[in-house]
Amino acid sequence: MEQQHATGPVLPHAISKHSAPYVIGADIGGTNLRLALADGAGQVISRWSASTVGASDAHAVVRMMRQGVDQLLRDTGLPIESVSAIAAGAPGITNVDSGVVIATSYLMGWRDVPLSQMLESEFKVPASVDNDVNLAAIGEHNAGAAQGVDDFVFLAVGTGIGAGIVINGQLHRGTIWTAGEIGYMLVPGASEAPVEGGKPGALEGIVGGEGIKAQWQSRWSSDLTPLSRDANATQIFDRALEGDPLAQEVLQLAGRTLAYAIYNTSLILNSPLFVLGGSVGVHPALGDATRMVLEQRRGRVQTKIVHSALGADAQLVGAIFLALVTANKKLAQAAD
Amino acid sequence: MEQQHATGPVLPHAISKHSAPYVIGADIGGTNLRLALADGAGQVISRWSASTVGASDAHAVVRMMRQGVDQLLRDTGLPIESVSAIAAGAPGITNVDSGVVIATSYLMGWRDVPLSQMLESEFKVPASVDNDVNLAAIGEHNAGAAQGVDDFVFLAVGTGIGAGIVINGQLHRGTIWTAGEIGYMLVPGASEAPVEGGKPGALEGIVGGEGIKAQWQSRWSSDLTPLSRDANATQIFDRALEGDPLAQEVLQLAGRTLAYAIYNTSLILNSPLFVLGGSVGVHPALGDATRMVLEQRRGRVQTKIVHSALGADAQLVGAIFLALVTANKKLAQAAD
Repeated sequence: MEQQHATGPVLPHAISKHSAPYVIGADIGGTNLRLALADGAGQVISRWSASTVGASDAHAVVRMMRQGVDQLLRDTGLPIESVSAIAAGAPGITNVDSGVVIATSYLMGWRDVPLSQMLESEFKVPASVDNDVNLAAIGEHNAGAAQGVDDFVFLAVGTGIGAGIVINGQLHRGTIWTAGEIGYMLVPGASEAPVEGGKPGALEGIVGGEGIKAQWQSRWSSDLTPLSRDANATQIFDRALEGDPLAQEVLQLAGRTLAYAIYNTSLILNSPLFVLGGSVGVHPALGDATRMVLEQRRGRVQTKIVHSALGADAQLVGAIFLALVTANKKLAQAAD
Repeated sequence: MEQQHATGPVLPHAISKHSAPYVIGADIGGTNLRLALADGAGQVISRWSASTVGASDAHAVVRMMRQGVDQLLRDTGLPIESVSAIAAGAPGITNVDSGVVIATSYLMGWRDVPLSQMLESEFKVPASVDNDVNLAAIGEHNAGAAQGVDDFVFLAVGTGIGAGIVINGQLHRGTIWTAGEIGYMLVPGASEAPVEGGKPGALEGIVGGEGIKAQWQSRWSSDLTPLSRDANATQIFDRALEGDPLAQEVLQLAGRTLAYAIYNTSLILNSPLFVLGGSVGVHPALGDATRMVLEQRRGRVQTKIVHSALGADAQLVGAIFLALVTANKKLAQAAD
């Protein structure tokens, strides 16, 4: 298990001095579990991570979190009593009121997992959970590219595509917690075939990591490009920046399709800012290709497109912030 | 000028007994101005309407409203002092805080019209203004198809297409008041060409009244259908219900395209209810064609599609409700 010590971004929001000094933030993913121990100002003191491949059952993940938290405490010499709350982001539809992860993708296969309850009984501290893209939006809002902006959309573009929608400083989660599932959006050029559960959505088929690889492979020929047929999205985008016409074609297609999705979302919400995150979304070439298409439609939509400032840390920083809010809420309740 | 006496739907919301007894609601459109005098419970006492064709300048419209209000008072034998507030819906982007209509379509050509100020100085009562589609959403929420539903989208499908978005019982208007401009949404089958100011949007070109006529005319031949080449959307949809294959083709195209727009909007917002209104949107055939397409995608989106309960009155009923809120706000301020 990999382990690193590092300091992270400071959360600018005022955190009560009365809160217990430390919190744990967790980012649960299909391939990795990442933990951070942070102080009452949101400063990351220590990090820990491990692979979840082959061990993504919820009970296994909670056991792994226990090992990670114990390791973080040993590393920092802190007692468990110094941890006042824990918050975790899960890659799926999450009821933040009940703390239940309703459904994740078929890779993890979670259904109605009472995660916050499981964390509270494991760690004996208040726990909160949310969808990982929503936590990334919270991270960018508090310590990243959307600081001071109370209306914006965080777009996570990785294998899948999801949106964290912030309206008046609050996440809009939808009546059954599925707001922002834009990976299935129907735009010109995308497949109109209805998608079955677990399969990539229409937008993901062109803009998501696997979709970009598939678009590349469907065009690939050794006569047309020196880049491998097995290249991933980042390699294809890098190659496009070097002038490879085939890679540029795939990049332009992804940029145009993502621009259409942003345009549609902006028509509905009138959000002034979109933050591109996720492993594919952070690539500068995708941002530029997207902006170029939106530029032609500025008469209608003037939204600004920026890249995530926190990168792969967005979810974890959001989890830390949620844990701090959770700790303070508990203290406020105790004071009543 | 046409004039009718009629009772309208009662607003179920409790209205303060301390408010002055009557309010005026106005629906300003590109072709008609419609007024209603209602009592403190939202019950319509009398109506008045006039054509705005050729006289849609803002000052001309306010003068026309003066004539209409005077006529309503004469008809009901009420003094002007009995009117406690006035509210108007305008067919364009409206800043509800400042009461300024920022822009209407090129037909009316309003730009930065301080409408609520103009109404207050004309009628010497508190005035409020809002976008007409937003007022229709308020109407359906308070006395129509969305009663008791705090998260829904009202879709006005007429010549143009716009959405009134209600989240947690509040209208979502966007940071520059343009939320819900979905007539320009890009969906499969719609034109990808950027649209210049005033021109119909991509969605409107297939689902809007003029778009439906254009789709009809592009397919029309006297060999294929007995219906006239100059038929309007309602006539085409009526004919589709009678089994005309050409009319059915245009209806299916409109239904599929509207379903895609609703699907996309629902992915973003996770709204459980869409209310179809507007002269084209109220046609039962369009609702059925739309529902049929969404039915194939229920694994992803389970939103309910219903027709407007207030029909052409939705905006006017919303204006009455807004006027009642405005009157009560003024009274609350006076009591402070």
